[in-house]
Amino acid sequence: SELSRKIAESSWFNQFILIVILAAGVVVGIQTYGEKVADYKELLWTLDQIILFIFLVEVIIKMSAEGNKPLRYFNDPWNVFDFTIVTVCYLALLFPEVEGAFVAVFRLARVMRVFRIVRTIPKLRLLVNTLLKSIPSIGYIGILLSVIFYIYATMGVFLFRENDPVHFGNLQLSLLSLFRVVTLEDWTNIMYINMYGCDHAIWGYGEENGCTDPQAFGFGAALYFVTFVLIGTMIVLNLFIGVIMNSMDE
Amino acid sequence: SELSRKIAESSWFNQFILIVILAAGVVVGIQTYGEKVADYKELLWTLDQIILFIFLVEVIIKMSAEGNKPLRYFNDPWNVFDFTIVTVCYLALLFPEVEGAFVAVFRLARVMRVFRIVRTIPKLRLLVNTLLKSIPSIGYIGILLSVIFYIYATMGVFLFRENDPVHFGNLQLSLLSLFRVVTLEDWTNIMYINMYGCDHAIWGYGEENGCTDPQAFGFGAALYFVTFVLIGTMIVLNLFIGVIMNSMDE
Amino acid sequence: SELSRKIAESSWFNQFILIVILAAGVVVGIQTYGEKVADYKELLWTLDQIILFIFLVEVIIKMSAEGNKPLRYFNDPWNVFDFTIVTVCYLALLFPEVEGAFVAVFRLARVMRVFRIVRTIPKLRLLVNTLLKSIPSIGYIGILLSVIFYIYATMGVFLFRENDPVHFGNLQLSLLSLFRVVTLEDWTNIMYINMYGCDHAIWGYGEENGCTDPQAFGFGAALYFVTFVLIGTMIVLNLFIGVIMNSMDE
Amino acid sequence: SELSRKIAESSWFNQFILIVILAAGVVVGIQTYGEKVADYKELLWTLDQIILFIFLVEVIIKMSAEGNKPLRYFNDPWNVFDFTIVTVCYLALLFPEVEGAFVAVFRLARVMRVFRIVRTIPKLRLLVNTLLKSIPSIGYIGILLSVIFYIYATMGVFLFRENDPVHFGNLQLSLLSLFRVVTLEDWTNIMYINMYGCDHAIWGYGEENGCTDPQAFGFGAALYFVTFVLIGTMIVLNLFIGVIMNSMDE
Ligand code: NA
Ligand code: NA
Repeated sequence: SELSRKIAESSWFNQFILIVILAAGVVVGIQTYGEKVADYKELLWTLDQIILFIFLVEVIIKMSAEGNKPLRYFNDPWNVFDFTIVTVCYLALLFPEVEGAFVAVFRLARVMRVFRIVRTIPKLRLLVNTLLKSIPSIGYIGILLSVIFYIYATMGVFLFRENDPVHFGNLQLSLLSLFRVVTLEDWTNIMYINMYGCDHAIWGYGEENGCTDPQAFGFGAALYFVTFVLIGTMIVLNLFIGVIMNSMDE
Repeated sequence: SELSRKIAESSWFNQFILIVILAAGVVVGIQTYGEKVADYKELLWTLDQIILFIFLVEVIIKMSAEGNKPLRYFNDPWNVFDFTIVTVCYLALLFPEVEGAFVAVFRLARVMRVFRIVRTIPKLRLLVNTLLKSIPSIGYIGILLSVIFYIYATMGVFLFRENDPVHFGNLQLSLLSLFRVVTLEDWTNIMYINMYGCDHAIWGYGEENGCTDPQAFGFGAALYFVTFVLIGTMIVLNLFIGVIMNSMDE
Repeated sequence: SELSRKIAESSWFNQFILIVILAAGVVVGIQTYGEKVADYKELLWTLDQIILFIFLVEVIIKMSAEGNKPLRYFNDPWNVFDFTIVTVCYLALLFPEVEGAFVAVFRLARVMRVFRIVRTIPKLRLLVNTLLKSIPSIGYIGILLSVIFYIYATMGVFLFRENDPVHFGNLQLSLLSLFRVVTLEDWTNIMYINMYGCDHAIWGYGEENGCTDPQAFGFGAALYFVTFVLIGTMIVLNLFIGVIMNSMDE
Repeated sequence: SELSRKIAESSWFNQFILIVILAAGVVVGIQTYGEKVADYKELLWTLDQIILFIFLVEVIIKMSAEGNKPLRYFNDPWNVFDFTIVTVCYLALLFPEVEGAFVAVFRLARVMRVFRIVRTIPKLRLLVNTLLKSIPSIGYIGILLSVIFYIYATMGVFLFRENDPVHFGNLQLSLLSLFRVVTLEDWTNIMYINMYGCDHAIWGYGEENGCTDPQAFGFGAALYFVTFVLIGTMIVLNLFIGVIMNSMDE
C-alpha cells in the first residue's frame, strides 16, 4: 500500500493516465464513423479493452493506496465518478446483448471517460469545483426561477392545452416550451399560434398535427408571453451573472 | 389576539403553511393532466377546498394578530397579495358558472397560490423585494426605452401599415413586433418583408393573409430595423445590467 | 429678452412644454389608426397645428432669451434638434403635395417631436448625454469591428456572390447579412445555403428567387461563418460592455 | 540602413502607408461589384499592382532597417503577417491560372491587406494585442468547453446518427450542430427532429433529404439538448466575460 500511494502520487503515473484518457477519446472519436472504419473495428475493440483495463488497474492502485481503509477512496467525489464509469463499462462487457435505454447508459459511460481529463489536470479540476461550488450560492434565484416556471407552465396548460397541444399539451411539454421561450428561440412562433389559433394560415400546424380545437387568445396570449420573456430572461441573466461572479471571486 | 400573534410568528406554523403551499402546487400540477386523472377529480377538488380553507384560516389568524387594528394587516403588500388570492378563489367557488375572461382570472388565482412560497421563505422574499426595489432606480432608462419604442412604433405604422399589416397593422401590433425585434427573434424576417414587399416569394405571406398592398422599401427598411436593433438592444442591456448591479449591491 | 430668459428658465414654462410634447405624442399615436379615426381627422389636424405653433413660439422665446446674439441658441445641440424638427414640420405644411422619400422625412419629423421629451426632463437628458459621450471612448473597438466586417463582407461577396445572390449579391447586402449573423439571427440558414448550395432541398431558395449558379462550399463555408460568429460576437460584446461601463462610471 | 530606419520610423511614412492601405480597401470594395464596374477593370488592376508594389517596398525598407541582421524583421509577428500577405499576393500574380482552393487563399490575402490598418494605428494594435493576450488566461475554460463539446458530439453521433444524418451524420457535423445550439440559433428545431423523429410532419425533412431511418427519442432527446444548452451557454458566457474582464484590466 505504501508502494501504491507512491505510484498514485507520482507525476509519471498521472501523465500516463492522461495519455490513456486522450487515447480513449481518440478511439471513441474514430468509432463515431461506424461503417467507414469497419476494417479497424477489431483493433478499436482491443484498444478499448486495454484502456478499460488500465482504468481498472488505476482504481485498484488508488484504493490500495488508502491502506487498510480502502473505502476512504470513495470520500473524493471524483473517485466515485471514476469508479462508476469503470463499473458501467465492465457491465456493458458482461451483458453485450442488452438493448434500449441501457445501451444509451453504456455508451454514455464510454463517452464520459473523456471527462476524466478534468480530474487529471489539477487546474481544470479546480475550475469545475469552483463552478459547482458557486451553484448553491445562487440557490434562491434558482428556486425563484423554478416557481416562475411552474406557475407559467401550469397556467399555460390550463389556457393553451386545447388550442396548442404540440407546445402545451401537458406539464412537461409546457416546461420545455417555456425553456425554449427563455432562450428567446423562436418564441414568437409559439406566441402567434396562441394569439391567432393553431389553424392560422401562417403559423398554424393543421389538424393532422394535433390542431383539433383552434382558439384565438389575441393580446391575452401576447401578455402571457411578453411578461414571461421579461421576467424569465431577467432572472436567468441574474442567475448566470451570479454564478460567474461567484466563480471569479474564488 | 395574543395567541394569534404567537401562532403567526411560530416557526411550526410557517413550516406547516409552506407544506400546504407545496401541496397546493402539486394538486395544481396534477390537475393539468385533465382527462387522464379524471378518476381522482373528486379527491383533487376536496384537497383544493381544504388547502383554500387553511389559507383562509391563515388570513384570519394574521389579521387577529394585529389586535384591535386588523386593517394594519394590509400594510404589508405581501398580505394584500395573499388576501386577493384567497378572495378570488372563494369568488370562483361561489360563481362556478362564470365563463370567459373571468375563468382565466380564477385559474390565475389558483395557480398564483404557488407564488405564496416566495413570501414564506424569508431569503426568497428578500430576493424579490431587492429585485423590485431596484426597478425605480433604472426608471429613467425605462422612460428612454419607452420613448424609443413609441417613436419607432408610430413610425413603423405610418411606413409599413399598408405593406405589412400582420406586423405593423396598428400601434399595439407594431409595439409587439418591435419587442420581438429587440429580443433579436427572427427580426430579419420582418425586415425582409418590408425591404422586398409582402408578396416576395421567400418572405412574403400572400394576399389571403393580408398582403393586399405590397410595397418594397429596400435599404430604407434595413436602416429602420438595423438602427432599432442597435439602439434598442443597447438600452435594454443597459437596463438589465442596471437592475442586476443594483440588486447585487443590496 | 430679459423677460424671454425668465420665461425660458421658469419651471411652469418647461412643464407646459412637457405637457404639449406628451399631447403631440398622443395625437401621433391616435393618427396611426388612420381610417378608424377618420371622424376626428380635422380635430387632430387642428391640434397638430396648435402644437406646432407652440413649439415655434418656444423656439422664438429661447432665441430672444439669448439677447442680441440669437445665434448662440444653436450652441446647444438639443436646440439644433428642436429647430430642425420645427422647420421640417413647417416645410411639410407649405409643400403638402410632396411625395416619396420626403414624405418619410416629414413623418419622421412629426414623430421625432416625441423625442423632445428627453431634453425637457433633465435626468433623461443627462442619461442620453452620458450614453452619447461614452461612444468615442469605445471608438477603437468600433474601428476594429468595422475592419472585421469589411474584410468578411468583401470576402463574402467574392466567395458566395454566384451561389447566394440574395445574401451576398453585393457589398451592402453582404454587410447586412453579416450584421444579421452577428445578432445570431438565423445565421445557420445562411451558412447551410453556402455549405450545400442554394439549390438544396431544405435550405435552398430555387432558381426563380436568384439561385441560378448553385455551388456547395462545404466546411469552407462553415469555417467562414463560425470564425465570424466567434470574432464578431466577442468584439460586439466588448463594445456593448464598454459603453455600459463607461456610462455607469459617469 | 540608417536611412531605412529613419524612414520606417517617420510619421509621414506611416501615414502614407495608412493611406495606401485605405486605398487598397476601397479598390477591393469596388471590385466586389464585378460586372457592374467592368469598364474600370484595367484601372483597378493597375492600382492593385501599385499598392502591392508599395507594400513590397515597405517590407524591403523595414528589413534593411534592421541593418546587417535583416531576419530580425521576422521577430515581430505583425511583420510576419505583412510579409505573408505580400508574398501570397505576388504568388497570385505569378500563377494566375491557379484554381480551386488556392483562388480562395489568394483572394483572402488581397482582402486581408485591409487588416494591415490594425498594425498601422498604434492604439488599434494595442487593442488587438490585449485581446489576443487575454486568450491564454482563459485557456482552461477553453479546454473544459472542448471536453464538453467532444463528449456531447460523440454521444450525439452514437444516438442520433441514424435518425438525423443531416445534423449528426458524423463528428464534424455534430460539432457544427452543437456550436449552433450553443448560439441558441434554432436549437429547438434540432431537438424536435430527434424527439419526434425526422419523419415528423412539422419538423422532419423527408426521405429524399436523408431521413431513411426515423426514430423518436422523446424526452431523452430533450434532456440531451436542454442540459447542453445550460452547461454550454454557461461556460461560453464565462469564457467571454473572462476575455473581456482580462482585456479591460490591461
Ligand atoms: Na431564430
Ligand atoms: Na436568437
